Amino acid sequence: MVIHLKHSVELAKAQELASKIGATHFFDGKKHVIVTSSKVKEVPELLADYVEDHFVMETDIQLASRDYRSEKRGIKSLGIGPGKTAIIAGPCSVESYEQLDTVAQFLIKSGVKLLRGGCFKPRTSPYTFQGLGLEGLELLAQMREKYGLKIVTEVKDSSHIADVIAHADVVQIGAKAMYDHSILRACGQSNKPVLLKRGFGTTLQEFVQAAEFILSQGNSEVMLCERGIRTFENKTRFTLDLTGVAFLKHHTNLPVIVDPSHAIGYRYGVPDLTRAAMAMGVEGLLLETHPKPEQALSDAAQQLSLEEFEKLHQSLHPVATAVGQQII
Amino acid sequence: MVIHLKHSVELAKAQELASKIGATHFFDGKKHVIVTSSKVKEVPELLADYVEDHFVMETDIQLASRDYRSEKRGIKSLGIGPGKTAIIAGPCSVESYEQLDTVAQFLIKSGVKLLRGGCFKPRTSPYTFQGLGLEGLELLAQMREKYGLKIVTEVKDSSHIADVIAHADVVQIGAKAMYDHSILRACGQSNKPVLLKRGFGTTLQEFVQAAEFILSQGNSEVMLCERGIRTFENKTRFTLDLTGVAFLKHHTNLPVIVDPSHAIGYRYGVPDLTRAAMAMGVEGLLLETHPKPEQALSDAAQQLSLEEFEKLHQSLHPVATAVGQQII
Amino acid sequence: MVIHLKHSVELAKAQELASKIGATHFFDGKKHVIVTSSKVKEVPELLADYVEDHFVMETDIQLASRDYRSEKRGIKSLGIGPGKTAIIAGPCSVESYEQLDTVAQFLIKSGVKLLRGGCFKPRTSPYTFQGLGLEGLELLAQMREKYGLKIVTEVKDSSHIADVIAHADVVQIGAKAMYDHSILRACGQSNKPVLLKRGFGTTLQEFVQAAEFILSQGNSEVMLCERGIRTFENKTRFTLDLTGVAFLKHHTNLPVIVDPSHAIGYRYGVPDLTRAAMAMGVEGLLLETHPKPEQALSDAAQQLSLEEFEKLHQSLHPVATAVGQQII
Amino acid sequence: MVIHLKHSVELAKAQELASKIGATHFFDGKKHVIVTSSKVKEVPELLADYVEDHFVMETDIQLASRDYRSEKRGIKSLGIGPGKTAIIAGPCSVESYEQLDTVAQFLIKSGVKLLRGGCFKPRTSPYTFQGLGLEGLELLAQMREKYGLKIVTEVKDSSHIADVIAHADVVQIGAKAMYDHSILRACGQSNKPVLLKRGFGTTLQEFVQAAEFILSQGNSEVMLCERGIRTFENKTRFTLDLTGVAFLKHHTNLPVIVDPSHAIGYRYGVPDLTRAAMAMGVEGLLLETHPKPEQALSDAAQQLSLEEFEKLHQSLHPVATAVGQQII
Repeated sequence: MVIHLKHSVELAKAQELASKIGATHFFDGKKHVIVTSSKVKEVPELLADYVEDHFVMETDIQLASRDYRSEKRGIKSLGIGPGKTAIIAGPCSVESYEQLDTVAQFLIKSGVKLLRGGCFKPRTSPYTFQGLGLEGLELLAQMREKYGLKIVTEVKDSSHIADVIAHADVVQIGAKAMYDHSILRACGQSNKPVLLKRGFGTTLQEFVQAAEFILSQGNSEVMLCERGIRTFENKTRFTLDLTGVAFLKHHTNLPVIVDPSHAIGYRYGVPDLTRAAMAMGVEGLLLETHPKPEQALSDAAQQLSLEEFEKLHQSLHPVATAVGQQII
Repeated sequence: MVIHLKHSVELAKAQELASKIGATHFFDGKKHVIVTSSKVKEVPELLADYVEDHFVMETDIQLASRDYRSEKRGIKSLGIGPGKTAIIAGPCSVESYEQLDTVAQFLIKSGVKLLRGGCFKPRTSPYTFQGLGLEGLELLAQMREKYGLKIVTEVKDSSHIADVIAHADVVQIGAKAMYDHSILRACGQSNKPVLLKRGFGTTLQEFVQAAEFILSQGNSEVMLCERGIRTFENKTRFTLDLTGVAFLKHHTNLPVIVDPSHAIGYRYGVPDLTRAAMAMGVEGLLLETHPKPEQALSDAAQQLSLEEFEKLHQSLHPVATAVGQQII
Repeated sequence: MVIHLKHSVELAKAQELASKIGATHFFDGKKHVIVTSSKVKEVPELLADYVEDHFVMETDIQLASRDYRSEKRGIKSLGIGPGKTAIIAGPCSVESYEQLDTVAQFLIKSGVKLLRGGCFKPRTSPYTFQGLGLEGLELLAQMREKYGLKIVTEVKDSSHIADVIAHADVVQIGAKAMYDHSILRACGQSNKPVLLKRGFGTTLQEFVQAAEFILSQGNSEVMLCERGIRTFENKTRFTLDLTGVAFLKHHTNLPVIVDPSHAIGYRYGVPDLTRAAMAMGVEGLLLETHPKPEQALSDAAQQLSLEEFEKLHQSLHPVATAVGQQII
Repeated sequence: MVIHLKHSVELAKAQELASKIGATHFFDGKKHVIVTSSKVKEVPELLADYVEDHFVMETDIQLASRDYRSEKRGIKSLGIGPGKTAIIAGPCSVESYEQLDTVAQFLIKSGVKLLRGGCFKPRTSPYTFQGLGLEGLELLAQMREKYGLKIVTEVKDSSHIADVIAHADVVQIGAKAMYDHSILRACGQSNKPVLLKRGFGTTLQEFVQAAEFILSQGNSEVMLCERGIRTFENKTRFTLDLTGVAFLKHHTNLPVIVDPSHAIGYRYGVPDLTRAAMAMGVEGLLLETHPKPEQALSDAAQQLSLEEFEKLHQSLHPVATAVGQQII
């Protein structure tokens, strides 16, 4: 149950009430909000005097549910919201100043405003490139200063969460890290927008519940990113779950981002899948592009060259128009 | 290996050669074609004198492969081919003359030329509606006569394959029947175009190999229909594998059809997924529509009302234009 | 709902009643049984005067449910039933008299009473060995005469169902054929025991519902065979679903058979998985064994040599004893 | 490639060499070991003078591979190794002193030496019980002191990894945390045995590669725990992948543990699945038992009562004997 407390209730009281009933609490800018398990179907007696409004929910998808808040949430600092589709582009891994600068210049010319690049790589093998770490974060920050790009970069585990929050404009939580409560909590308590990737073995229910960890700490700017799930099919690296995207659009109030590059894992299919996601009117598209994909230190098979990226980018505009979206 | 025999080789000789090496044989209108297992990497000695041309293949995706024939195949009688997207619409099950006539009239007004409707329903339970059978086929044939619509209907098992071939303009092989060699062989030996649905537990490799059963009997008009695969996600009925569609477009020479209705299983997501498939430039879209979906005898949750269908249909045109396709 | 009619009700009347309410009907040896959709929760008025007893069911798992009949069904002619585990062994494909005779002699010495061998192979590629067909059935029948073995062989599609029913002692319905209503119905109307394999993309619910097609035609001798499902894991060919076996044991009244050979697809794991299934107290084990596995025309990687089979067979006895089962 | 350096090489030199070629390094008690990517197929020139021995590997399963070290690794402090099967039992969550003490007393009487209990619960919902945290670790430590039990407890994210390493005898890395490099590295640098759970969406390849993160930091005591993977089947919570267990036994040198409770998610199937795993001769079994399962704060549906546990425990001995294992 989501409970709105009366405006007169003060912080200490709100915290005390939440704590007494074992619920989460946050201040949403206007009022104190308490969230209990969805199994609670009646207002706890203890709170009776303080409740302004309450919402009984079916499952633990609560703050993200259209039943709680029917209008779609946006990301203010990025201009993301209904009717807009943001392009987020850049290399899989930050590799060097030169590499990043080439990409950044290119994106600026293309009108792209969000630069992505990984510094802490969640590689499955200990014997491959693990990312530039903090050095990479600093290179990204230089691009922001030089070009005014907004920076999207991934946190892999909680040991560097503070660094990522400090350097990024959007904190990306990777597919393998999305169950990590320390990361989710830290993001919930920060004021940075969060791009939450769905784990490849994660149900839609669990995915949105991970977003609830962030929302219920007071950070309302969470984007849900579909990036392919693991199925029996192995001709492609993963299976992009656009059926799931339809579900998320219909049932949740959170912006939805699609990452076709990681889903298919092969360059050839990225343009078609990107246009497919565009035609669904999603709020953002995450695309990997690299000056020399064949020399990339990670994900060489799936990154687009800058020329391929630009060709795709151009082709998105008429599709956007066809479905009433504006590319930003 | 795909082997083209010299034009001088006669039918009896071609058959004899194929039989001796345990391979399949067919006449493609111009020449005799023999197909061996893809494990055969050199022309069998026995055939040496008769071979015009040969194609060594990596896997048993052979006649359907771009490596054998790079240009896309089309379906002549339906006008299906590159640059065109055919709309195939109608109710899940044929239920009555009135139901079918209402839909048919509506489709004619909308400019749709292909009417679908199931007569033999592959229901999972023996205790639910199993379809009108032959009576349904005759109702469909009446619609063809009355309105000039082309009829697409499904064969469920080999006991009624002859009836379906006789009545339909396009024989649909259902997801649960696609491994049935008797059906595949009968379709391969007929001259009716075939719409082959992917099984929900079927890999892309197996899917195309089922098409090879048809192609290698001499019928070159096979469409591959993606209709959702079974994954761990159960908020949606199936997961529409558009990543797989990208693979099929890239690697095979067969037209690709998408069926979003069965994939998601819920009306709400059908329009978005249909537009997504449209944006990928597929050759056809299969849509369930029913005059009164809530009263449908099967798939009540996913069929669009005629009004919903028409609204979706209208919205497809700008998307088609955006990606250079023409809706037929 | 499962309805037992009063003993006084005659065949014609029972059929008439079933037909009027659109339900299935069969005679179970003692009484007429009518089965409606499980959505029917009250006895239809029309039947009120004729009902002896009725069972309201939750899902369309009805005749197979422990809620209908709590004691486990057995297979009389084979001695299969609670406390017994039957070994069913033989080559993947029947290849020749010599091959089959070698295996048959070996099995007789080992005390195995059930010989399996495929004649109609549901291969995924049209360019590989498709089985000996009718000739194979006759070879199997010779083994029955010569050695007194019971014959288990697979039907692949409905074109040869009559032949298989005529020749086999147990009709095996393959994983790819298990949705085929013509096959299910023909088996339901025969008096031969049926070994029904689970499709690799088939849910437990659908699997048992396929058995209901057979049971509701009057054949009560159906065995459920788990043979591996398709998952994201591809180091092994399939994933043997013993969790599903636990479900089937607990919720249904049908004997359960396990086929570890097809599940893993590699010889090395067959013994361990067979012992695992044995320890669960299943009613049967299906094992592939071939005199020269490396020369087998199908499934060469997973068949055990006769020596490997015998070593495994011996090792099963102490496990059987440990869990109170007797190997037959 | 795994490289053994000559005994004469000193620590600083070994580290320098590893660093120069971007490889991992550790001392295995006798010699320095360097591991490069498996793509390296020839000894790097720089190392030529220092190499004693080297092992070219097919994939990044290297230290865990039977091709590197054919004999099975054991866990000295626990007596775990070939021929032994350790029982690890206890409640899902540590809830109170009383609860834990009841279980501990019971286990001691049953001869069980390893007590498990979760303190940091990786719940999918923020609105449910999240565990007792550090307080729970201290309760577990009290049980060790009082009863001499060894303590197995789970780390959920890297924020409390130091606490878990300090308190536990075996550090369990949960299914949702197994890609977390900070945790894997911390465990690799500790001297505590590690029980690594497979993620429910994790391939066998990735699973063993996670173990490589630990092994390549110098900790050789890693157990692989199969606990069910996510498949399309939803009648059971997960699908226990015993086919995967067969693969791990055959291809790796690490002890394998099976957790049937989490796999099926329902009490009824736990005994059968446990006996199945026992019959495969695994090195350990992880079982959830609770004094009052129906009142448990987590996993209420799957935990065994103490009586059910003991009945199961007794039934394991004859199965163990049948396959030549000794229960410890």
